[in-house]
Amino acid sequence: MPGGSEEAYQIIAPILEAVSAKVGNDPCVAFMGNGSAGHYVKMVHNGIEYGLMQLIAEGYDLMRRIAGLSNEELHQAFNQWNGGSLQSFLIEITAEIFQQKDDQGTGDLIDKILDKAKQKGTGKWTSQNAMDLGIPVSSIDAAVSMREISALKQERVQASGFLAVEASIPDVSKSEFITHIGKALEFAFILSYAQGMSLLSAASDDKGFKLDMEAIARIWRGGCIIRAALLEDIRKAYHSTPHLTNLLLSPVFKERLLATQDSCRYILKAAIDAGVPSLSFSATLAYFDAYRSARLPLNLVQAQRDFFGSHTYERIDKAGIFHTEWGGFS
Amino acid sequence: MPGGSEEAYQIIAPILEAVSAKVGNDPCVAFMGNGSAGHYVKMVHNGIEYGLMQLIAEGYDLMRRIAGLSNEELHQAFNQWNGGSLQSFLIEITAEIFQQKDDQGTGDLIDKILDKAKQKGTGKWTSQNAMDLGIPVSSIDAAVSMREISALKQERVQASGFLAVEASIPDVSKSEFITHIGKALEFAFILSYAQGMSLLSAASDDKGFKLDMEAIARIWRGGCIIRAALLEDIRKAYHSTPHLTNLLLSPVFKERLLATQDSCRYILKAAIDAGVPSLSFSATLAYFDAYRSARLPLNLVQAQRDFFGSHTYERIDKAGIFHTEWGGFS
Repeated sequence: MPGGSEEAYQIIAPILEAVSAKVGNDPCVAFMGNGSAGHYVKMVHNGIEYGLMQLIAEGYDLMRRIAGLSNEELHQAFNQWNGGSLQSFLIEITAEIFQQKDDQGTGDLIDKILDKAKQKGTGKWTSQNAMDLGIPVSSIDAAVSMREISALKQERVQASGFLAVEASIPDVSKSEFITHIGKALEFAFILSYAQGMSLLSAASDDKGFKLDMEAIARIWRGGCIIRAALLEDIRKAYHSTPHLTNLLLSPVFKERLLATQDSCRYILKAAIDAGVPSLSFSATLAYFDAYRSARLPLNLVQAQRDFFGSHTYERIDKAGIFHTEWGGFS
Repeated sequence: MPGGSEEAYQIIAPILEAVSAKVGNDPCVAFMGNGSAGHYVKMVHNGIEYGLMQLIAEGYDLMRRIAGLSNEELHQAFNQWNGGSLQSFLIEITAEIFQQKDDQGTGDLIDKILDKAKQKGTGKWTSQNAMDLGIPVSSIDAAVSMREISALKQERVQASGFLAVEASIPDVSKSEFITHIGKALEFAFILSYAQGMSLLSAASDDKGFKLDMEAIARIWRGGCIIRAALLEDIRKAYHSTPHLTNLLLSPVFKERLLATQDSCRYILKAAIDAGVPSLSFSATLAYFDAYRSARLPLNLVQAQRDFFGSHTYERIDKAGIFHTEWGGFS
C-alpha cells in the first residue's frame, strides 16, 4: 500500500504489480495517495483487522459457552461460513485453528493457549487517530479494550471468584445459534469495514491524501489479512458512489444490514443473560443504532455543559449559539 | 488539583484550603503528586465526567423512548435519585434541566436543544492516554464515540430513513423501568469511577506521580463536576486498601455491584429490542463481565496472530514463548 510520490511509484509499479497477489487479473497493489497515505491506509487496515479478530473471538466464546460447541463443531461452522458470504482469510484460518492438535501434549492446541492478547500498536493508533479526527470507530476501540482487559489475567482470575454472578445460560438450539452468529458476524464485519473506511475518507480530506476508496477496496481483496469476499462489494459501493461518506448509506449493503441486524440483537441478549462479555458486538450494534438515530439524547449533554460551564448550545428551530441561565427553581 | 513541587504547594496551601469548597471540615484541595500530576488528575476527572454524562443521557433516552416518560416525570425521577445513593451534582442539575422552560419560545427547553454534542478534548485525551498505558476505560471511550456520532447529524438523519428497522418497544411498567434505570446508573457510575481510578493508579506508577488515591477521592467529594455521594465510599475503599488495583475488587462495592448488575442487563435487553443505542451502558456491562472472566476468548486472537504473523503465544500449562507451524490439513 505505497504512498509518497506518484511519479516515483510509477517507475517501480510494473515490478510491484508483477510480484503482488492478484484477484483475477487485478494486482493487489496501487499508488495510495500523497505523503504518508500508504502508511495511513496500512494502519487502518490493521485497525479493521483488530475489529474482525475480536468479533470472531466473541463469536467463538458465545458458541462455546452458550451453545456448547466442541472444537470440531467450531471448525465445521467456520469452514461452512468460509464457503459463503463470510469468505475471508481470517474465517479460513480460524476454521483451521480449531483442527490444530497440541504439538506439546494431547488434545487441541486452542485450549492450551493463554488468553492474554498482545498488540504491536496499530489498532491503538487507529483508535487514537480516529479520535483526533472526530470519527467514531467503536468496534475498533472495543477490540483494543478487549486486548487490554485480556492482559489483566491475574485481576480477572481474582474478580471471577469475587464477583461471581449466577449466569442464566439461555437454552438454544446449536444449529439456530450458529446461524445467528454467522449473520451477526456478517453484520458486524460490514460495520467494521464501514468504520475503517469512513476514517480513511475523513483522513484523506484532513491530510490531503486524495485517496481512491475504490482502489483501496480493490487491492485489499487479495494478499492482505483482511481480504474477504465482502471487499468486492465494498469496491462496487465506491465504484457507484466514489465520495460515499459511509458504507452504511450504500444501497449495496442496505438489505444485508437489515437482514442480519436481528441476529446481532439475538446473540447479544443471550450474551447479556449468560454474562459472556461481548464488547465488540455490543459496540457494533450501538454504532449502527446510533448512526441511524435522527435524534440522539446528546441534547441533554449540551444542556449539562451549558449549565455547569456556559459552553452554549445550538437549537433545532433557529440558527445561532445560545446560553441559558439555568436553575433557580427552589 | 495542583501538582508540581510539594514545597511550593505547602507555601500556598493555607490560602487554597481557605477558599476551596469543603465537605464537612475537609477542604477540596490537596497536593496531588510530582510533576504534572495535578493536570493528569484533572484530565481523568473530565474523562469520568464524560462517562457519567453519557450514561445519564442514555438513561434519559431509554426512559423517554421505551417507558414514555414526560419531562416532568424525568424531573421527578432524577430528583428522587438525587436524594439517595445516586446523589451527585450531575444528577442534581439533570433534574433541574427537565424543569427549565424555553426562554426563546414555548414548552420545555430540553426539547429545543440540538443533539450535537461538542467537546473540548479532555475526554478524548483520557481515552487516548489510557490506550498508551494499556488500561481499558471502555465506558469513557464510549462517551467519546457518542459525542462524535452525535456530531454527524446530517448523516444520521439520512440513515434514519434509509436504515429504518421496525422496533419492538417492550411493554414496561413506568415505575419498574425507572427503578431499573436507577440501579443501572448506580452500577455504571461505580464502573466509570473504577475505570478512571484504575487509570490514575497505572499513570502514577508509569509517570512516578506517587498519587494518594484516597486524597483524590476525598477532594473530589466537593466543588467539582463529578462530586457525588459515591466518592465517600471510594475514599473508604482506598482508605482500607491504599494500593487497590481496581475498585471492582473492593469489598466496599461488591454487594452494590452484585445487587445492581441485573438491572443493567434488563435495560440493555430492552434497548436492544427497541433499537435505542446504549453504547455506554453496553460498554460498561461488557467491561464488568470481561473483568470478572477468568477465561476470555483471546486465546483465539493469539492463535490467529501466531498463524498469520508468527507473533508467538504463551500457554496455560507451561512457561515460555511458543510458535506453531499452523495448518496444512487439506
